[in-house]
Amino acid sequence: SASWADDLDQVRTLLQLCLDRHFISPGDTNAELFRRGLSCTYGPLGMELRRNLLGQWWDSVTRSRAQVFGIDTLSNSSSSKDGETDVGGKLRIVQPQYLKQILQHLQQDLSKEQIVQELTTILQKSPAVRTNFLQGALEQFIPSLELVNRKLPFGLAETGLCFQPSDDSCCPTEMTQTSLVWFCSPRTSSQWLDHWTRQRLKWWRKFALSPSNFSSSDVPEEELTGLVSRSVKIIYDFPWGPEPLETLCSRGDAELLQTHKGARSKLQCRNGRKTVPHVVSVTGNMDRGLMAFLSNSLQLLKREDSKRKLQQRKVLKLHPVLAPVKVAIDIGKGATIELRQVCEGLLQEFMEAKISTWPGYLETMPVTMEQLNNKYDEMGVLFTLVISDNTLESGLLQVRSRDTTVKETMHISEVKNFISRYITAADKI
Amino acid sequence: SASWADDLDQVRTLLQLCLDRHFISPGDTNAELFRRGLSCTYGPLGMELRRNLLGQWWDSVTRSRAQVFGIDTLSNSSSSKDGETDVGGKLRIVQPQYLKQILQHLQQDLSKEQIVQELTTILQKSPAVRTNFLQGALEQFIPSLELVNRKLPFGLAETGLCFQPSDDSCCPTEMTQTSLVWFCSPRTSSQWLDHWTRQRLKWWRKFALSPSNFSSSDVPEEELTGLVSRSVKIIYDFPWGPEPLETLCSRGDAELLQTHKGARSKLQCRNGRKTVPHVVSVTGNMDRGLMAFLSNSLQLLKREDSKRKLQQRKVLKLHPVLAPVKVAIDIGKGATIELRQVCEGLLQEFMEAKISTWPGYLETMPVTMEQLNNKYDEMGVLFTLVISDNTLESGLLQVRSRDTTVKETMHISEVKNFISRYITAADKI
Repeated sequence: SASWADDLDQVRTLLQLCLDRHFISPGDTNAELFRRGLSCTYGPLGMELRRNLLGQWWDSVTRSRAQVFGIDTLSNSSSSKDGETDVGGKLRIVQPQYLKQILQHLQQDLSKEQIVQELTTILQKSPAVRTNFLQGALEQFIPSLELVNRKLPFGLAETGLCFQPSDDSCCPTEMTQTSLVWFCSPRTSSQWLDHWTRQRLKWWRKFALSPSNFSSSDVPEEELTGLVSRSVKIIYDFPWGPEPLETLCSRGDAELLQTHKGARSKLQCRNGRKTVPHVVSVTGNMDRGLMAFLSNSLQLLKREDSKRKLQQRKVLKLHPVLAPVKVAIDIGKGATIELRQVCEGLLQEFMEAKISTWPGYLETMPVTMEQLNNKYDEMGVLFTLVISDNTLESGLLQVRSRDTTVKETMHISEVKNFISRYITAADKI
Repeated sequence: SASWADDLDQVRTLLQLCLDRHFISPGDTNAELFRRGLSCTYGPLGMELRRNLLGQWWDSVTRSRAQVFGIDTLSNSSSSKDGETDVGGKLRIVQPQYLKQILQHLQQDLSKEQIVQELTTILQKSPAVRTNFLQGALEQFIPSLELVNRKLPFGLAETGLCFQPSDDSCCPTEMTQTSLVWFCSPRTSSQWLDHWTRQRLKWWRKFALSPSNFSSSDVPEEELTGLVSRSVKIIYDFPWGPEPLETLCSRGDAELLQTHKGARSKLQCRNGRKTVPHVVSVTGNMDRGLMAFLSNSLQLLKREDSKRKLQQRKVLKLHPVLAPVKVAIDIGKGATIELRQVCEGLLQEFMEAKISTWPGYLETMPVTMEQLNNKYDEMGVLFTLVISDNTLESGLLQVRSRDTTVKETMHISEVKNFISRYITAADKI
């Protein structure tokens, strides 16, 4: 259908824009990882966007009214202590000296049985890399109990790199996950699942241009795996179909008991009667989250250019707190040393206020103001400041807004506060 | 000597404090990783401290006057495309299905030569995990050229997890590295090495209680490895001896040329004449950096307790911007619902201002004010607020400073601004 073709066109346009504007690095494999919601090599804008996204996630989870503590666990863990025998079940990091050893032994006069035995031992000794943060948080439950004086509920949060075996290539894929593992009394676990679902959906929609593309959906009972008794997914409706961004699961107490070898007395909390808490996990994929916000914020607008030709205007209307670059500083006609100094002063002022700024005035390629605006709109830059001779005389400069395309004249002494207030106001909504 | 014994005692005290106060998780192996300056499992306070440290590093490098862009590369990369044959030289992530395959084939009727061949192929296909960020940045040099319009100098920054093979155990170690890869004209590379050394040393000392424990030291020529022509280390003088925190290297252009297969024309920049840039790398270990600041900020003070017994007071005088908890809120005698509500209001106010706050009023264990102060001093909490009945009547509360131990009375409406100003002022020094 025409709409399907439009959707595909939009995906192509988005991927091209992400390449052109340094959200992601060049390369077909890289673009494919990105599209699939996996970690790829990010350029400066993608890197900054993901940084903002992770920062917002962290603040919303750890600074909510609920008691949430951040932790940081190791990405690889020796599993030999568990006497695990299934060496084929996990991604493992193998040390070079062991690999050399295997190859040498193969060339020597060992029997096949001995080699199988040796290889198995080496693989058992090689640590498995994490596929998510759940196990780490379950292990940290007991040390954390002291922090909360054995009182429920509380949570442990972590973000970072996780790995997944992949079926279709030799490379395991990596992704940036967010994890909240929430410990609560058994009778409240279902309410907490609902609470966190509402919170998380609200968070995703807060930053969206079209909030209705984000939704939550119960996982049908027959699709539940392992010990999960109830599960909800936060879903984004991509042009190619819906994909999950964050998954919430009600997991009971079995994994917690298993991790701590059934030591009930160590796990019990003081809430009315002594209980082993139930676990609610909230696991997000922030690489796909980044893709969702990019996809959600791209607006394709038709308009006439200065030569009356119909052109497509692409604007990345990222939420002000997510936008990787808030302000670009440029020079109008005739770059002189004095104008450059004004730009540098402004840049310094913005950097000190931690407003991410693009030093467009360093660019020496001659471009028209129209080309410049197109570029900044594609980068999602909120405001473009143009310094001119007039600025030297009267202190006035031009401020163009990405969202309204309106150009305002403002005094140089007011511009920092104007932009700070704009971003803060957007954050509060 | 007595001083050596004192030093060891100080290390023991520090490690115990880090365990007691949730900087690191329990376990001898974990404490040992931590002491060696490697990633370990961090508790909430260690996690927040490292977060603050990485944030400060990032701001100082990317918000300096120099042009620095952040990037984010993949942690594992397939090396098979390079036709690399040394399968024993690198840490690799091996997929479970390949391991199963090897073991199955060993049990079948293949010759040893076939198995050696197969194992070699599989290991070649398995991606190597990064040991540092240098290679990633060198690969991103060409896409970044467009950002700077082929003008030198500029830099690429990245922080995150890197892995190292370890000699003494089966587990590879992991660490949180910071990396700035700086591209400049050949004739300025030595000056830039000096520039970044000064900048980095200044940064480390800015947050130190005893800045003289941080120093820089030239690496003797005979110790230079690979293609490095000059190198400087930023060193911290731990109680057990000096250890490097950050290493700066002048690396020439050979690795950049090698990465891009000698394609000079693609690498040339426009600075006067066309040149292939030289590379200066700045690589830091932020796990060891965290250990350095903890070690540097621990003060052991003798003093008399309320019963006139001589006691050791331990205060973690972390720099205000690094301190993982800025404020603790507690209730004096008689916790009532009204007092709790005041605490919750304050907590919310502080969280919105992004001031990290410890909700001490949730603690239900009866402790004396002295025990509470000791605990918060060991946690490095800057200020403790005590809410009492008096607060309900007059709006006044008590503010105790970690560094002066002085208790001031302040109006509840002023306390947030007081603390914000205090932290901002400390940041500006």
